[in-house]
Amino acid sequence: MTRWLYDLRGRDERLRFSPYCWRIKYALAHKGLDYQTRPWCYRDKEALTFSGQGAVPVLVDGETVISDSYEILRYLDRTYPQAPLLGEGPAEARARFFKHYAERALAPAIMRTLIMDLYQAVDPGDRDYFRASREKRFGRSLEEFHSPVQGLAQLDRALEPLRGQLEASDYLDGAAPAAADYLVFGAFLWARCVSNADLVSNADPVHAWVERMLDLHDGLGRRALRVSDLDDAYR
Amino acid sequence: MTRWLYDLRGRDERLRFSPYCWRIKYALAHKGLDYQTRPWCYRDKEALTFSGQGAVPVLVDGETVISDSYEILRYLDRTYPQAPLLGEGPAEARARFFKHYAERALAPAIMRTLIMDLYQAVDPGDRDYFRASREKRFGRSLEEFHSPVQGLAQLDRALEPLRGQLEASDYLDGAAPAAADYLVFGAFLWARCVSNADLVSNADPVHAWVERMLDLHDGLGRRALRVSDLDDAYR
Repeated sequence: MTRWLYDLRGRDERLRFSPYCWRIKYALAHKGLDYQTRPWCYRDKEALTFSGQGAVPVLVDGETVISDSYEILRYLDRTYPQAPLLGEGPAEARARFFKHYAERALAPAIMRTLIMDLYQAVDPGDRDYFRASREKRFGRSLEEFHSPVQGLAQLDRALEPLRGQLEASDYLDGAAPAAADYLVFGAFLWARCVSNADLVSNADPVHAWVERMLDLHDGLGRRALRVSDLDDAYR
Repeated sequence: MTRWLYDLRGRDERLRFSPYCWRIKYALAHKGLDYQTRPWCYRDKEALTFSGQGAVPVLVDGETVISDSYEILRYLDRTYPQAPLLGEGPAEARARFFKHYAERALAPAIMRTLIMDLYQAVDPGDRDYFRASREKRFGRSLEEFHSPVQGLAQLDRALEPLRGQLEASDYLDGAAPAAADYLVFGAFLWARCVSNADLVSNADPVHAWVERMLDLHDGLGRRALRVSDLDDAYR
Protein backbone atom coordinates (compact mmCIF):
# COMPACT_ATOMS: atom_id res chain seq x y z
CA MET A 1 0.00 0.00 0.00
CA THR A 2 1.32 3.40 -0.91
CA ARG A 3 0.39 6.43 1.17
CA TRP A 4 -0.15 9.48 -1.04
CA LEU A 5 0.05 13.15 -0.17
CA TYR A 6 -1.28 15.66 -2.67
CA ASP A 7 1.23 18.49 -2.43
CA LEU A 8 1.12 21.92 -4.04
CA ARG A 9 3.78 22.37 -6.75
CA GLY A 10 5.12 25.62 -8.09
CA ARG A 11 6.63 26.62 -11.40
CA ASP A 12 9.04 23.71 -11.11
CA GLU A 13 7.54 20.39 -10.21
CA ARG A 14 10.07 20.01 -7.40
CA LEU A 15 9.19 23.39 -5.89
CA ARG A 16 6.83 22.61 -2.98
CA PHE A 17 6.06 25.55 -0.76
CA SER A 18 2.58 25.09 0.72
CA PRO A 19 2.80 25.74 4.49
CA TYR A 20 -0.15 23.39 5.05
CA CYS A 21 1.51 20.58 3.13
CA TRP A 22 4.78 21.09 5.01
CA ARG A 23 2.95 20.50 8.28
CA ILE A 24 1.98 17.07 7.01
CA LYS A 25 5.39 16.18 5.61
CA TYR A 26 6.92 16.93 9.01
CA ALA A 27 4.14 15.04 10.79
CA LEU A 28 4.61 11.93 8.65
CA ALA A 29 8.37 12.05 9.24
CA HIS A 30 7.74 12.51 12.97
CA LYS A 31 5.80 9.24 13.04
CA GLY A 32 8.19 7.46 10.71
CA LEU A 33 5.51 6.89 8.06
CA ASP A 34 6.47 6.45 4.40
CA TYR A 35 4.60 8.31 1.70
CA GLN A 36 4.87 9.62 -1.79
CA THR A 37 3.71 13.00 -2.98
CA ARG A 38 1.48 13.78 -5.93
CA PRO A 39 2.27 17.23 -7.27
CA TRP A 40 -0.84 19.35 -7.60
CA CYS A 41 -1.61 22.75 -9.13
CA TYR A 42 -4.37 25.16 -8.17
CA ARG A 43 -6.05 24.59 -11.53
CA ASP A 44 -6.23 20.82 -11.01
CA LYS A 45 -9.49 21.08 -9.05
CA GLU A 46 -10.82 17.94 -10.72
CA ALA A 47 -7.90 15.89 -9.48
CA LEU A 48 -9.21 16.42 -5.94
CA THR A 49 -12.90 15.77 -6.63
CA PHE A 50 -12.61 12.37 -4.92
CA SER A 51 -11.68 14.16 -1.69
CA GLY A 52 -14.86 16.22 -1.58
CA GLN A 53 -13.11 19.58 -1.65
CA GLY A 54 -10.59 21.55 -3.64
CA ALA A 55 -7.41 22.26 -1.68
CA VAL A 56 -4.28 20.47 -0.55
CA PRO A 57 -3.05 18.81 1.55
CA VAL A 58 -5.08 15.69 0.89
CA LEU A 59 -3.77 12.48 2.39
CA VAL A 60 -4.80 9.15 0.90
CA ASP A 61 -3.98 6.42 3.40
CA GLY A 62 -5.22 3.12 2.01
CA GLU A 63 -8.99 3.46 1.90
CA THR A 64 -9.01 6.68 3.92
CA VAL A 65 -9.05 10.14 2.37
CA ILE A 66 -8.44 13.12 4.67
CA SER A 67 -8.08 16.80 3.90
CA ASP A 68 -7.30 19.91 5.94
CA SER A 69 -3.89 19.95 7.58
CA TYR A 70 -5.18 20.03 11.15
CA GLU A 71 -7.64 17.19 10.52
CA ILE A 72 -4.82 15.16 9.00
CA LEU A 73 -2.76 15.63 12.17
CA ARG A 74 -5.72 14.40 14.21
CA TYR A 75 -6.18 11.45 11.90
CA LEU A 76 -2.50 10.52 12.17
CA ASP A 77 -2.62 10.58 15.99
CA ARG A 78 -5.74 8.41 16.03
CA THR A 79 -4.46 5.92 13.52
CA TYR A 80 -0.77 5.81 14.45
CA PRO A 81 -0.61 6.55 18.19
CA GLN A 82 3.18 6.27 18.37
CA ALA A 83 5.02 9.61 18.75
CA PRO A 84 1.94 11.78 19.44
CA LEU A 85 1.67 15.00 17.48
CA LEU A 86 -1.21 16.83 19.12
CA GLY A 87 -1.89 14.66 22.14
CA GLU A 88 -5.26 14.80 23.87
CA GLY A 89 -7.33 17.05 26.11
CA PRO A 90 -5.76 20.42 26.96
CA ALA A 91 -2.59 19.47 25.05
CA GLU A 92 -4.62 19.16 21.85
CA ALA A 93 -6.66 22.31 22.53
CA ARG A 94 -3.48 24.29 23.14
CA ALA A 95 -1.85 22.91 20.00
CA ARG A 96 -4.77 24.25 18.00
CA PHE A 97 -3.88 27.77 19.10
CA PHE A 98 -0.58 27.43 17.22
CA LYS A 99 -2.51 26.73 14.04
CA HIS A 100 -4.39 30.00 14.47
CA TYR A 101 -1.25 31.85 15.50
CA ALA A 102 0.52 30.67 12.33
CA GLU A 103 -2.41 31.37 10.03
CA ARG A 104 -3.70 34.63 11.51
CA ALA A 105 -0.64 36.32 13.02
CA LEU A 106 2.39 35.08 11.05
CA ALA A 107 1.02 34.24 7.58
CA PRO A 108 -0.59 37.66 6.90
CA ALA A 109 2.67 39.42 7.79
CA ILE A 110 4.75 37.04 5.65
CA MET A 111 2.23 37.32 2.81
CA ARG A 112 2.53 41.06 2.85
CA THR A 113 6.30 40.78 2.70
CA LEU A 114 6.59 38.09 0.03
CA ILE A 115 3.45 38.17 -2.07
CA MET A 116 5.29 39.01 -5.30
CA ASP A 117 7.86 36.26 -4.69
CA LEU A 118 4.99 33.90 -4.08
CA TYR A 119 3.29 34.97 -7.28
CA GLN A 120 6.49 34.26 -9.19
CA ALA A 121 6.86 30.86 -7.51
CA VAL A 122 3.39 29.68 -8.55
CA ASP A 123 3.10 27.64 -11.73
CA PRO A 124 2.53 30.02 -14.68
CA GLY A 125 -0.75 28.27 -15.50
CA ASP A 126 -1.97 29.00 -11.95
CA ARG A 127 -1.06 32.66 -11.82
CA ASP A 128 -4.34 34.09 -13.12
CA TYR A 129 -6.23 32.09 -10.52
CA PHE A 130 -3.75 33.02 -7.81
CA ARG A 131 -3.91 36.71 -8.64
CA ALA A 132 -7.70 36.83 -8.88
CA SER A 133 -8.35 34.89 -5.66
CA ARG A 134 -5.77 36.81 -3.60
CA GLU A 135 -6.81 40.20 -4.96
CA LYS A 136 -10.38 39.40 -4.02
CA ARG A 137 -9.27 38.43 -0.51
CA PHE A 138 -7.07 41.51 -0.01
CA GLY A 139 -9.45 43.91 -1.71
CA ARG A 140 -6.63 45.35 -3.83
CA SER A 141 -4.03 44.36 -6.40
CA LEU A 142 -1.08 42.18 -5.44
CA GLU A 143 1.20 45.11 -6.21
CA GLU A 144 -0.73 47.40 -3.87
CA PHE A 145 -0.85 44.78 -1.13
CA HIS A 146 2.87 44.07 -1.40
CA SER A 147 4.74 46.01 1.28
CA PRO A 148 7.88 44.43 2.71
CA VAL A 149 8.43 47.37 5.09
CA GLN A 150 4.99 47.02 6.66
CA GLY A 151 5.03 43.24 6.43
CA LEU A 152 8.35 42.89 8.24
CA ALA A 153 7.28 45.37 10.96
CA GLN A 154 4.05 43.39 11.41
CA LEU A 155 6.01 40.13 11.51
CA ASP A 156 8.49 41.50 14.04
CA ARG A 157 5.67 42.29 16.43
CA ALA A 158 3.84 39.01 15.73
CA LEU A 159 6.97 37.02 16.56
CA GLU A 160 7.20 38.33 20.14
CA PRO A 161 5.38 35.41 21.81
CA LEU A 162 7.49 32.96 19.81
CA ARG A 163 10.66 34.68 21.02
CA GLY A 164 9.52 34.39 24.62
CA GLN A 165 8.85 30.70 24.18
CA LEU A 166 12.14 29.96 22.41
CA GLU A 167 14.27 31.87 24.89
CA ALA A 168 13.43 29.14 27.41
CA SER A 169 13.21 25.95 25.34
CA ASP A 170 14.56 24.51 22.11
CA TYR A 171 11.13 23.82 20.63
CA LEU A 172 7.64 25.22 21.01
CA ASP A 173 6.64 21.84 22.38
CA GLY A 174 9.47 21.83 24.93
CA ALA A 175 12.62 19.73 24.70
CA ALA A 176 11.47 17.92 21.53
CA PRO A 177 9.35 19.05 18.58
CA ALA A 178 5.75 18.00 17.99
CA ALA A 179 2.60 19.47 16.46
CA ALA A 180 2.99 23.04 17.75
CA ASP A 181 6.39 23.26 16.08
CA TYR A 182 5.16 21.81 12.81
CA LEU A 183 2.04 23.97 12.70
CA VAL A 184 4.13 27.13 12.98
CA PHE A 185 7.20 26.05 11.04
CA GLY A 186 5.18 25.50 7.87
CA ALA A 187 4.95 29.28 7.54
CA PHE A 188 8.73 29.66 7.70
CA LEU A 189 9.38 26.94 5.13
CA TRP A 190 6.81 28.50 2.83
CA ALA A 191 8.77 31.75 2.96
CA ARG A 192 12.11 29.99 2.59
CA CYS A 193 11.08 28.07 -0.52
CA VAL A 194 9.87 31.10 -2.44
CA SER A 195 12.26 33.82 -1.29
CA ASN A 196 15.74 34.64 -0.10
CA ALA A 197 14.49 37.40 2.19
CA ASP A 198 15.74 37.21 5.78
CA LEU A 199 12.65 37.34 7.94
CA VAL A 200 14.51 37.26 11.26
CA SER A 201 17.99 38.37 12.27
CA ASN A 202 20.70 35.86 13.14
CA ALA A 203 20.58 36.92 16.81
CA ASP A 204 16.87 36.19 17.12
CA PRO A 205 15.97 33.04 19.11
CA VAL A 206 13.49 32.35 16.31
CA HIS A 207 16.42 32.09 13.88
CA ALA A 208 18.09 29.38 15.97
CA TRP A 209 14.81 27.47 16.13
CA VAL A 210 14.37 27.72 12.34
CA GLU A 211 17.85 26.23 11.91
CA ARG A 212 16.98 23.37 14.27
CA MET A 213 13.71 22.76 12.45
CA LEU A 214 15.50 22.68 9.08
CA ASP A 215 17.82 19.96 10.41
CA LEU A 216 15.06 17.73 11.80
CA HIS A 217 14.19 14.41 10.18
CA ASP A 218 17.43 14.18 8.19
CA GLY A 219 17.25 17.76 7.01
CA LEU A 220 13.77 17.43 5.53
CA GLY A 221 13.29 21.19 5.34
CA ARG A 222 16.88 22.07 4.49
CA ARG A 223 16.76 19.74 1.48
CA ALA A 224 13.63 21.41 0.11
CA LEU A 225 14.14 23.04 -3.25
CA ARG A 226 14.10 26.83 -3.13
CA VAL A 227 13.36 29.22 -5.97
CA SER A 228 16.96 30.37 -5.69
CA ASP A 229 18.11 26.84 -6.55
CA LEU A 230 16.43 26.97 -9.94
CA ASP A 231 18.56 27.63 -13.00
CA ASP A 232 16.27 30.44 -14.05
CA ALA A 233 16.01 31.93 -10.57
CA TYR A 234 17.31 35.30 -11.62
CA ARG A 235 16.02 35.63 -15.11
CA MET B 1 -2.83 27.41 58.34
CA THR B 2 -3.70 30.43 56.28
CA ARG B 3 -2.54 30.68 52.66
CA TRP B 4 -1.56 34.23 51.76
CA LEU B 5 -1.41 35.92 48.41
CA TYR B 6 0.33 39.29 48.17
CA ASP B 7 -1.86 41.18 45.73
CA LEU B 8 -1.31 44.59 44.15
CA ARG B 9 -3.76 47.23 45.41
CA GLY B 10 -4.66 50.48 43.71
CA ARG B 11 -5.88 53.80 45.02
CA ASP B 12 -8.61 51.99 46.92
CA GLU B 13 -7.52 49.01 48.98
CA ARG B 14 -10.22 46.90 47.31
CA LEU B 15 -9.07 47.81 43.80
CA ARG B 16 -6.96 44.82 42.65
CA PHE B 17 -5.99 44.92 39.01
CA SER B 18 -2.65 43.12 38.57
CA PRO B 19 -3.00 40.67 35.65
CA TYR B 20 -0.35 38.43 37.22
CA CYS B 21 -2.22 38.29 40.54
CA TRP B 22 -5.50 37.53 38.76
CA ARG B 23 -3.90 34.46 37.21
CA ILE B 24 -3.26 33.14 40.70
CA LYS B 25 -6.68 34.02 42.11
CA TYR B 26 -8.28 32.06 39.25
CA ALA B 27 -5.81 29.20 39.69
CA LEU B 28 -6.53 28.92 43.42
CA ALA B 29 -10.28 28.95 42.76
CA HIS B 30 -9.77 26.32 40.02
CA LYS B 31 -8.22 23.98 42.59
CA GLY B 32 -10.68 24.91 45.33
CA LEU B 33 -7.93 26.26 47.61
CA ASP B 34 -8.74 28.88 50.25
CA TYR B 35 -6.52 31.92 50.68
CA GLN B 36 -6.48 35.46 51.90
CA THR B 37 -4.90 38.37 50.13
CA ARG B 38 -2.46 40.88 51.54
CA PRO B 39 -2.81 44.19 49.74
CA TRP B 40 0.53 45.45 48.50
CA CYS B 41 1.77 48.69 46.94
CA TYR B 42 4.71 49.19 44.62
CA ARG B 43 6.50 51.20 47.30
CA ASP B 44 6.24 48.39 49.87
CA LYS B 45 9.38 46.70 48.56
CA GLU B 46 10.44 45.83 52.12
CA ALA B 47 7.25 43.89 52.73
CA LEU B 48 8.44 41.38 50.10
CA THR B 49 12.07 41.11 51.25
CA PHE B 50 11.33 37.67 52.72
CA SER B 51 10.44 36.44 49.22
CA GLY B 52 13.82 37.33 47.74
CA GLN B 53 12.43 39.73 45.15
CA GLY B 54 10.23 42.78 44.78
CA ALA B 55 7.09 42.07 42.80
CA VAL B 56 3.73 40.40 43.29
CA PRO B 57 2.21 37.88 43.13
CA VAL B 58 3.91 36.16 46.05
CA LEU B 59 2.19 33.12 47.48
CA VAL B 60 2.92 32.03 51.03
CA ASP B 61 1.67 28.49 51.46
CA GLY B 62 2.62 27.28 54.94
CA GLU B 63 6.42 27.19 54.95
CA THR B 64 6.69 27.70 51.21
CA VAL B 65 7.18 31.08 49.54
CA ILE B 66 6.78 31.28 45.77
CA SER B 67 6.87 34.25 43.44
CA ASP B 68 6.32 34.74 39.68
CA SER B 69 2.87 33.90 38.43
CA TYR B 70 3.97 31.07 36.14
CA GLU B 71 6.13 29.49 38.84
CA ILE B 72 3.19 29.67 41.23
CA LEU B 73 1.03 27.76 38.71
CA ARG B 74 3.75 25.10 38.48
CA TYR B 75 3.98 24.92 42.26
CA LEU B 76 0.21 24.54 42.60
CA ASP B 77 0.15 21.66 40.11
CA ARG B 78 3.02 19.90 41.89
CA THR B 79 1.59 20.35 45.36
CA TYR B 80 -2.14 19.98 44.66
CA PRO B 81 -2.42 17.62 41.68
CA GLN B 82 -6.22 17.73 41.57
CA ALA B 83 -7.70 19.76 38.69
CA PRO B 84 -4.43 20.29 36.76
CA LEU B 85 -3.72 23.79 35.56
CA LEU B 86 -0.73 23.39 33.25
CA GLY B 87 -0.47 19.63 33.01
CA GLU B 88 2.79 18.03 31.95
CA GLY B 89 5.01 17.52 28.89
CA PRO B 90 3.76 19.19 25.70
CA ALA B 91 0.60 20.39 27.49
CA GLU B 92 2.76 22.41 29.89
CA ALA B 93 5.09 23.67 27.16
CA ARG B 94 2.13 24.81 25.07
CA ALA B 95 0.51 26.52 28.07
CA ARG B 96 3.67 28.58 28.48
CA PHE B 97 3.12 30.07 25.03
CA PHE B 98 -0.11 31.66 26.32
CA LYS B 99 1.90 33.43 29.01
CA HIS B 100 4.10 34.97 26.33
CA TYR B 101 1.15 35.72 24.09
CA ALA B 102 -0.59 37.57 26.94
CA GLU B 103 2.51 39.45 28.03
CA ARG B 104 4.08 40.24 24.66
CA ALA B 105 1.15 40.51 22.25
CA LEU B 106 -1.88 41.57 24.30
CA ALA B 107 -0.45 43.53 27.25
CA PRO B 108 1.57 46.04 25.16
CA ALA B 109 -1.52 46.83 23.07
CA ILE B 110 -3.73 47.20 26.15
CA MET B 111 -1.06 49.26 27.90
CA ARG B 112 -0.93 51.66 25.00
CA THR B 113 -4.72 52.01 25.12
CA LEU B 114 -5.16 52.37 28.88
CA ILE B 115 -1.92 53.69 30.33
CA MET B 116 -3.49 56.89 31.67
CA ASP B 117 -6.38 54.94 33.25
CA LEU B 118 -3.83 52.65 34.81
CA TYR B 119 -1.85 55.60 36.12
CA GLN B 120 -5.02 56.96 37.75
CA ALA B 121 -5.84 53.56 39.25
CA VAL B 122 -2.48 53.21 41.00
CA ASP B 123 -2.25 54.31 44.62
CA PRO B 124 -1.27 58.02 44.73
CA GLY B 125 1.82 57.19 46.75
CA ASP B 126 2.95 54.79 43.99
CA ARG B 127 2.45 57.13 41.06
CA ASP B 128 5.92 58.67 41.00
CA TYR B 129 7.44 55.20 40.94
CA PHE B 130 4.93 53.99 38.35
CA ARG B 131 5.56 56.95 36.07
CA ALA B 132 9.36 56.81 36.35
CA SER B 133 9.61 53.04 35.78
CA ARG B 134 7.17 52.97 32.84
CA GLU B 135 8.63 56.06 31.18
CA LYS B 136 12.05 54.44 31.38
CA ARG B 137 10.66 51.25 29.81
CA PHE B 138 8.80 53.08 27.01
CA GLY B 139 11.51 55.67 26.39
CA ARG B 140 8.96 58.49 26.52
CA SER B 141 6.40 60.11 28.77
CA LEU B 142 3.18 58.30 29.67
CA GLU B 143 1.29 61.00 27.81
CA GLU B 144 3.35 60.46 24.65
CA PHE B 145 3.04 56.69 24.91
CA HIS B 146 -0.73 56.85 25.43
CA SER B 147 -2.50 56.23 22.12
CA PRO B 148 -5.88 54.47 22.23
CA VAL B 149 -6.21 54.57 18.45
CA GLN B 150 -2.91 52.80 17.88
CA GLY B 151 -3.39 50.57 20.90
CA LEU B 152 -6.79 49.32 19.82
CA ALA B 153 -5.59 48.71 16.26
CA GLN B 154 -2.63 46.75 17.63
CA LEU B 155 -4.93 44.81 19.96
CA ASP B 156 -7.38 44.03 17.17
CA ARG B 157 -4.60 42.39 15.18
CA ALA B 158 -3.13 40.63 18.20
CA LEU B 159 -6.51 39.08 19.04
CA GLU B 160 -6.77 37.21 15.73
CA PRO B 161 -5.39 33.86 16.96
CA LEU B 162 -7.64 34.08 20.02
CA ARG B 163 -10.65 34.61 17.77
CA GLY B 164 -9.75 31.54 15.74
CA GLN B 165 -9.47 29.45 18.87
CA LEU B 166 -12.72 30.69 20.40
CA GLU B 167 -14.75 30.25 17.22
CA ALA B 168 -14.36 26.50 17.75
CA SER B 169 -14.38 26.02 21.52
CA ASP B 170 -15.71 27.73 24.63
CA TYR B 171 -12.31 28.03 26.29
CA LEU B 172 -8.70 28.26 25.15
CA ASP B 173 -8.16 24.94 26.91
CA GLY B 174 -11.09 23.32 25.13
CA ALA B 175 -14.44 22.51 26.73
CA ALA B 176 -13.35 23.64 30.21
CA PRO B 177 -10.96 26.38 31.34
CA ALA B 178 -7.47 25.78 32.71
CA ALA B 179 -4.10 27.52 32.74
CA ALA B 180 -4.16 28.85 29.17
CA ASP B 181 -7.44 30.65 29.89
CA TYR B 182 -6.20 32.09 33.18
CA LEU B 183 -2.85 33.19 31.75
CA VAL B 184 -4.59 35.22 29.05
CA PHE B 185 -7.65 36.36 30.95
CA GLY B 186 -5.56 38.21 33.54
CA ALA B 187 -4.89 40.84 30.86
CA PHE B 188 -8.60 41.38 30.27
CA LEU B 189 -9.43 41.70 33.98
CA TRP B 190 -6.57 44.15 34.39
CA ALA B 191 -8.18 46.33 31.73
CA ARG B 192 -11.67 45.88 33.14
CA CYS B 193 -10.71 46.91 36.66
CA VAL B 194 -9.05 50.17 35.64
CA SER B 195 -11.19 51.28 32.70
CA ASN B 196 -14.63 51.26 31.14
CA ALA B 197 -13.19 51.13 27.61
CA ASP B 198 -14.64 48.41 25.40
CA LEU B 199 -11.67 46.49 24.04
CA VAL B 200 -13.70 44.13 21.87
CA SER B 201 -17.07 44.43 20.20
CA ASN B 202 -20.09 42.47 21.43
CA ALA B 203 -20.06 40.34 18.27
CA ASP B 204 -16.45 39.22 18.81
CA PRO B 205 -16.01 35.60 19.98
CA VAL B 206 -13.48 37.03 22.42
CA HIS B 207 -16.28 39.04 24.04
CA ALA B 208 -18.36 35.92 24.69
CA TRP B 209 -15.33 34.23 26.22
CA VAL B 210 -14.67 37.23 28.48
CA GLU B 211 -18.25 36.99 29.71
CA ARG B 212 -17.83 33.27 30.42
CA MET B 213 -14.56 33.91 32.24
CA LEU B 214 -16.17 36.64 34.38
CA ASP B 215 -18.84 34.15 35.49
CA LEU B 216 -16.42 31.36 36.43
CA HIS B 217 -15.84 30.39 40.04
CA ASP B 218 -18.98 32.11 41.34
CA GLY B 219 -18.36 35.29 39.39
CA LEU B 220 -14.85 35.81 40.75
CA GLY B 221 -13.94 38.29 38.05
CA ARG B 222 -17.35 39.89 37.73
CA ARG B 223 -17.35 40.71 41.46
CA ALA B 224 -13.98 42.44 41.22
CA LEU B 225 -14.15 46.12 42.11
CA ARG B 226 -13.68 48.44 39.15
CA VAL B 227 -12.54 52.04 39.18
CA SER B 228 -16.00 52.96 37.92
CA ASP B 229 -17.49 51.48 41.13
CA LEU B 230 -15.63 53.98 43.31
CA ASP B 231 -17.53 56.98 44.66
CA ASP B 232 -14.87 59.29 43.33
CA ALA B 233 -14.59 57.57 39.96
CA TYR B 234 -15.41 60.68 38.01
CA ARG B 235 -13.89 63.37 40.14
